[in-house]
Amino acid sequence: MRRATLAFALSLALAAPAYAAQHAQTTIADTAIARATALRDEALQSDLGWKITESLTTEVGPRLAGSEADARAVEWAKAKFKQLGFDKVYTEPVTFPKWERRSESGAVLGEHAQKLYLAALGGSPGGTVEGEVVRFDGLKALMDAPADSLKGKIAFVDFTMEAKRSGEDYGIGSRVRFMGPSEAGKRGAIGYVMRSAGTDSHRVPHTGGTMFMPGVNPIPSAALSIPDAEQLTRLTALGPTKIRVALDCGFDGTYTSQNVIGEITGTKKPKDVIVIGGHLDSWDLGTGAIDDGVGVGISMAAAALIKPLKPARTIRVVAFANEEAGLYGGRAYAEAHKGEVKQNVLVSESDLGAGHIYGFDAHVADYAKGAASKIAAVLAPLGIEYQPGKGEPESDVGPIAAKGAAWAWLGHDATQYFDLHHTADDTMDKIDPKDLQQNVAAYATYTYLAAEAQGDFGSDPANAHEEHEF
Amino acid sequence: MRRATLAFALSLALAAPAYAAQHAQTTIADTAIARATALRDEALQSDLGWKITESLTTEVGPRLAGSEADARAVEWAKAKFKQLGFDKVYTEPVTFPKWERRSESGAVLGEHAQKLYLAALGGSPGGTVEGEVVRFDGLKALMDAPADSLKGKIAFVDFTMEAKRSGEDYGIGSRVRFMGPSEAGKRGAIGYVMRSAGTDSHRVPHTGGTMFMPGVNPIPSAALSIPDAEQLTRLTALGPTKIRVALDCGFDGTYTSQNVIGEITGTKKPKDVIVIGGHLDSWDLGTGAIDDGVGVGISMAAAALIKPLKPARTIRVVAFANEEAGLYGGRAYAEAHKGEVKQNVLVSESDLGAGHIYGFDAHVADYAKGAASKIAAVLAPLGIEYQPGKGEPESDVGPIAAKGAAWAWLGHDATQYFDLHHTADDTMDKIDPKDLQQNVAAYATYTYLAAEAQGDFGSDPANAHEEHEF
Repeated sequence: MRRATLAFALSLALAAPAYAAQHAQTTIADTAIARATALRDEALQSDLGWKITESLTTEVGPRLAGSEADARAVEWAKAKFKQLGFDKVYTEPVTFPKWERRSESGAVLGEHAQKLYLAALGGSPGGTVEGEVVRFDGLKALMDAPADSLKGKIAFVDFTMEAKRSGEDYGIGSRVRFMGPSEAGKRGAIGYVMRSAGTDSHRVPHTGGTMFMPGVNPIPSAALSIPDAEQLTRLTALGPTKIRVALDCGFDGTYTSQNVIGEITGTKKPKDVIVIGGHLDSWDLGTGAIDDGVGVGISMAAAALIKPLKPARTIRVVAFANEEAGLYGGRAYAEAHKGEVKQNVLVSESDLGAGHIYGFDAHVADYAKGAASKIAAVLAPLGIEYQPGKGEPESDVGPIAAKGAAWAWLGHDATQYFDLHHTADDTMDKIDPKDLQQNVAAYATYTYLAAEAQGDFGSDPANAHEEHEF
Repeated sequence: MRRATLAFALSLALAAPAYAAQHAQTTIADTAIARATALRDEALQSDLGWKITESLTTEVGPRLAGSEADARAVEWAKAKFKQLGFDKVYTEPVTFPKWERRSESGAVLGEHAQKLYLAALGGSPGGTVEGEVVRFDGLKALMDAPADSLKGKIAFVDFTMEAKRSGEDYGIGSRVRFMGPSEAGKRGAIGYVMRSAGTDSHRVPHTGGTMFMPGVNPIPSAALSIPDAEQLTRLTALGPTKIRVALDCGFDGTYTSQNVIGEITGTKKPKDVIVIGGHLDSWDLGTGAIDDGVGVGISMAAAALIKPLKPARTIRVVAFANEEAGLYGGRAYAEAHKGEVKQNVLVSESDLGAGHIYGFDAHVADYAKGAASKIAAVLAPLGIEYQPGKGEPESDVGPIAAKGAAWAWLGHDATQYFDLHHTADDTMDKIDPKDLQQNVAAYATYTYLAAEAQGDFGSDPANAHEEHEF
């Protein structure tokens, strides 16, 4: 998960889609409800989601977009779809600039000399810089700094981010990560460090993508682990503090990866698809278990569990390429399928970990709200509350939703997500098997009912809107 | 904290010291009890222990014995004792072989290629080895392996270690660390990796000292972080697994550091000393907050709080050099003071973190047990239980206790200690300020009462016994 999209959700809530006033109500038959209920209870006992996620994170491990492991992950996904009995397995190309991390180190220099644990931000140039640290308490303080005030200095942006179920404080941290390097560079800084966008207290920095505004000279930019950020705050309070940031990383040409797609072909409406998925790439520090191996595991498992029920519509599971460096897989999917917005009947992605799913929302036409509410009723025994208007399309389905596809949201409890997100600690042991079973049960139930609904959910290119970030 | 000494405590319980049968009872006057009670309650409000520990871990940071930070730590301790108003500040030399960590990396090779997070064990030679992993479920399994059965292989010892208040499972992990490399080397292994001796689930390996038995060819030896050990277990279950372990580290001559000693001179019996302390060195990965900056902070603060009460005996705070690589500071202290065992009236060290102190024990002559029980009564309102026979002399005071000094034990709750011990995560933020206040209150109370006791506690070279490890 890369983006912070709460404002996006807000903007959608304000811009109500222009659905036709008189339209047959979308319904779900009682037989489908009964089958979904049995499926839900069966999925709660299944370890398929665990096994798929364990296989990906163990056998492939970390899979930075464009790395040799990216290609291994694509082969893994194709083989896994086939092994799980998907009817159709294919790929669609996704091309992007390739960024590599080779090595990185940091240190306090001088009388308090000590190592700093840091990680280059994705998109940072390489380079070794040494200079005095200027600490800012938040992004605004940096943006208030005068032009040229950071000449020869290394900017350090500190801030606070609280653990919350919604994960909403990630908006604070991701803004510091996306905007800080450019703002520092514009003011003459030779380097940039930030407190990690996280909520833990371990020596595991949180990487993540950044970018440089046009006309700004890119500067080496890194995230300090949270204890290191606190240490640097204490040290700068004692007096002038010099540090070294040494990053060997950078862009190296372009790379073409693949969105890997597996389908359970619909028995009645094969051209209508319910899209679920996760992203196949991960940052390179951990093994990408919660971000987002488990999204792939949840959606592959949900579809495989649905298959014996012979769903009316096609279930399309997309293992998206390169979400982390800029949503390339999601954008490529939207571009490749922009002529089929109506056939993308309902879309969703699981990209906020494996915490308990506590909320459900579907951004659908008024005539489909009764159907959404029927889905919510089958999800309710899983401890999932129907929260109309609360959700958002997660990462990679944002672009197709922006083209007018109706979307659903199954909201994971993200209280612990930002302890792990984009760190070396994002490993299999952090997933609770019981929560994962609940996640798979929720996705299987929701997806099957969406596939069985009589009538659509309002996907229509007429509902296209601009994509937002932040 | 380096050693696992439970068996040691057991052996002491069996070997009762030969005290004279008829001896005046050691007592503590009511006026001293009253002053100690007030001191205890004052210390509970003091942030002095926090400030000292924060100063050491921030301004010096990690302080591996023999590194440039070792010398800075010695200067820091001398200055801090003076700043706190100690009457006498001096040093005693401690010489040891210097071991350095320069860099280290690990990786799974082949079709599941991925990085492994590991740390060289202290005392390991450098070297880069590649080979197939042979996994052992515990040290015994390795020791059961036939001679030459590991030729050209890398041994991997896995095991389980549970978090317990006593920390006793560290005995399992530290045996794997001390004995594993030699046992692997004897069987022809070219390298050695182990699951970290810890109870956490973070990508922060636990370093710690190892040693090679005479006649065994030293092999590169490292600890994997716990998630990495679990990953390697999953990978070896899939099939033959090759890894690379690349360590740049090793011994480089000898180094002379210092035990730094500060004293509050006794007003009535200045030559009689109550010894408290912690060790000044730390491993290099973290900033040595719980191991053992806080031991130095607790004991310096306790003595400074006692000073206005003008204690009868001298309070001697020892910041021991190089505990981690082999108890060099503790042994040097015992050697330098072996002629003054009787004057080392009662000795203790705080070297098990900053968890709540839950137990008190004093290994003293029968005629002093009434006094020990009076001390226990003043400690009781701090939530400290008197546990005769339960304790042990912590690390650096082990050698002087082995020479016959009476010792006391103030037992920290170690449930979380081995989440952090010897890792990069051993940083200031892991200390609970309230627990630290309780620790300082306990040490101040105990130390003052020991200094005021009328009569001794039975320190006598006649009680000398062999030192044990494990």
